[in-house]
Amino acid sequence: MKVEEMVDEKVSRRGLLKGAAGTAAGIAVLASGGLSFFSKAEAKDGPTVKWPWSYKKLDPAITAEIAYNEWYRVFCGAAVISSVFGQLRDKIGEPYKSFPIDAFVFLEGGMAGWGTICGSNAGANIVSNMIIGPRIAGPECENGAVIGSNMMKWYSETPLPVYAPKDPRVKTVIVKTTSDSPLCHLSVGKWMKASGYPLGSPERRDRCARVSASVAYKLVEDLNAWKDGKYVEKAAWSPAKNFGITAQQNCTDCHGANIPAPPPGK
Amino acid sequence: MKVEEMVDEKVSRRGLLKGAAGTAAGIAVLASGGLSFFSKAEAKDGPTVKWPWSYKKLDPAITAEIAYNEWYRVFCGAAVISSVFGQLRDKIGEPYKSFPIDAFVFLEGGMAGWGTICGSNAGANIVSNMIIGPRIAGPECENGAVIGSNMMKWYSETPLPVYAPKDPRVKTVIVKTTSDSPLCHLSVGKWMKASGYPLGSPERRDRCARVSASVAYKLVEDLNAWKDGKYVEKAAWSPAKNFGITAQQNCTDCHGANIPAPPPGK
Repeated sequence: MKVEEMVDEKVSRRGLLKGAAGTAAGIAVLASGGLSFFSKAEAKDGPTVKWPWSYKKLDPAITAEIAYNEWYRVFCGAAVISSVFGQLRDKIGEPYKSFPIDAFVFLEGGMAGWGTICGSNAGANIVSNMIIGPRIAGPECENGAVIGSNMMKWYSETPLPVYAPKDPRVKTVIVKTTSDSPLCHLSVGKWMKASGYPLGSPERRDRCARVSASVAYKLVEDLNAWKDGKYVEKAAWSPAKNFGITAQQNCTDCHGANIPAPPPGK
Repeated sequence: MKVEEMVDEKVSRRGLLKGAAGTAAGIAVLASGGLSFFSKAEAKDGPTVKWPWSYKKLDPAITAEIAYNEWYRVFCGAAVISSVFGQLRDKIGEPYKSFPIDAFVFLEGGMAGWGTICGSNAGANIVSNMIIGPRIAGPECENGAVIGSNMMKWYSETPLPVYAPKDPRVKTVIVKTTSDSPLCHLSVGKWMKASGYPLGSPERRDRCARVSASVAYKLVEDLNAWKDGKYVEKAAWSPAKNFGITAQQNCTDCHGANIPAPPPGK
């Protein structure tokens, strides 16, 4: 199989293939298939924990408004979790009532300020995987990881924030930027560069609140589709299998033109 | 205050100051203080969720062995969570029994294979913040985020894996590498480069299982110290406050010598 057939146009355009896969080593990795993290395992959390959790369809816009306002209380990761689980606590009760939403404040700033995974992405992954369950719990639970993974792809490729709150706390025009990455540092950094606003500004803070709202909106759209049996997407990004390393899609952002090839597979 | 007084020698040596802080803009950011993510908020998760959760001191070596073996069932993030919460389910019961450990399989491969935050780090942050609580729940809960943040620093600076299981599944010598980053992609990538083993190899898999065990060992040491009232560390890395952006410590890994300065603060 040709390398080009295995990846979409955007990945190719970003120069990923020039390095990792455009070499004999890279092709050997690709040809070896089925690598690494996605092997079989068995869930044993029960009997206290079972999947999927009960879910009632939510209104995306209402959820986004909650996420926007919750950002100012618990920041990105916990805001996304709270926007969904808070409503389900009222509509359903357990296990949502026992889930410690506020403890996920630490997702702020890409995990305690370290700029790693954006908390909105982490929160969305937590929500989809808690409700639908882990892939090891059976085929009916695979959509939890898929929704989370595809959220990171959407987040990376979309000019954010897309959601404008009804009554924004900051009235200034908030520019939209594309992060090309699910990481806080790149998402916030590229926005600060484009907007000229510093990290501590009301504008940057409102931008991140709107990003959380944007993610919460899409998350509920996806969960509603799953609830209706209409979520049919597969994970759109499988770097372990296709490139021989866990990775984002923005190789050249850090590596420039010199993308190293991983050790060849068998 | 001089820039040099605000950061430790290692950060300086890595060239961070040459870019972000070694300019007028950088210094203005530093002088503005108290930026961003670490503002006040109020927890409202109760009455079903209260902090700190009951905790009984655990044996670090036993915990590490559990994490090592659990890696082969649920991978890095859930393995670290399971190694601590699994024991506390038996010793204490709730709220550990209701916490959905297996749902965190998605932390594998830096979140569904995307290579972002190493699952061992994410799992450690989840454990410390669930048990001790979020910083917004009061001063007595601040150590949850501190233990998690300092785990990422330790992980970045330590030649890993440090823990060798009693009966390793792979008998080959596993080389130790320093990631200079809390991210999966860098941690796994640098190890693959040094060892020559590909992602799908038994050696790479056992290396990651040992990394999870190493993190679990230190996590329980820290939790035991906290339980004894002897955990007195503060977060050793505060990039938002000191550099005006959420960030890791390895600026030059991606930026080379051209580290951009964030927009200046007021």
